[in-house]
Amino acid sequence: MSKQEVKTGIHFSQVETGDLSQWPDYSISLPGVDLPGKLFLKDLLGLTGCEISINSMMPGESMPFYHRHHHNEEVYIFIKGQGQVQIDGKILDVKEGSIVRIGPEAERLWRNNSDEQLAYIVLQVKENSLGQYGVDDASVPEKAVSWG
Amino acid sequence: MSKQEVKTGIHFSQVETGDLSQWPDYSISLPGVDLPGKLFLKDLLGLTGCEISINSMMPGESMPFYHRHHHNEEVYIFIKGQGQVQIDGKILDVKEGSIVRIGPEAERLWRNNSDEQLAYIVLQVKENSLGQYGVDDASVPEKAVSWG
Repeated sequence: MSKQEVKTGIHFSQVETGDLSQWPDYSISLPGVDLPGKLFLKDLLGLTGCEISINSMMPGESMPFYHRHHHNEEVYIFIKGQGQVQIDGKILDVKEGSIVRIGPEAERLWRNNSDEQLAYIVLQVKENSLGQYGVDDASVPEKAVSWG
Repeated sequence: MSKQEVKTGIHFSQVETGDLSQWPDYSISLPGVDLPGKLFLKDLLGLTGCEISINSMMPGESMPFYHRHHHNEEVYIFIKGQGQVQIDGKILDVKEGSIVRIGPEAERLWRNNSDEQLAYIVLQVKENSLGQYGVDDASVPEKAVSWG
């Protein structure tokens, strides 16, 4: 897929990754292996607190290696299809709406063992980095809502 | 929707939020207002580096107030439908596959101005908290892949 156009403003950035049906067209190259259906977003969007990748696995596809992390917690958010995640040898069934947190040290692997596309989002965040959160980090200006 | 069951292991946790078609059944209560179609996940999953919410807006629904953040960068990941995001008065059109980073200080608002469900994921991460990321934070054990 061609290079993504990023729209930026003073306090925001936006990218269009396409419909989920287009995600299989992305790929990344690692030493000795290409991973289809993956696009990293941190550098594209100028993210400062997380890495995000969008991901697609077609039927029968699988990660070709285990991996661990050093500092980062990962979260896998499954948004279409079904598959399996293996964590320290334990196998979890996942599907649309499954969300899995994985600590840095765990050995992880995943696959699409179904007959339809598996689409998911993977987050990397620094373990124990979040301070206040939810509505506690927010404030609401006194300003009537307007769409102009 | 009834309380979610969380499966936990030594280095992981997993929750089933249901198909996207079930997300409208969630809601959160804030002082003076209920927000339909929203579920926060940090406390459920024991996340330490991010807050995540899953979200659904039905046709015509809109956030009833602007908000800013103090310390947290937000990322909106749109996975179904279409709508609009307003950031410091600028209006962005978003749809399935749109991903928007918003800095803490920006005033933000969003709505579903279409005739179908809008589903999206919102992340809160501490601004500038991420160190190494992507494959640089990972290591690959010398171990043959096995699904047992």
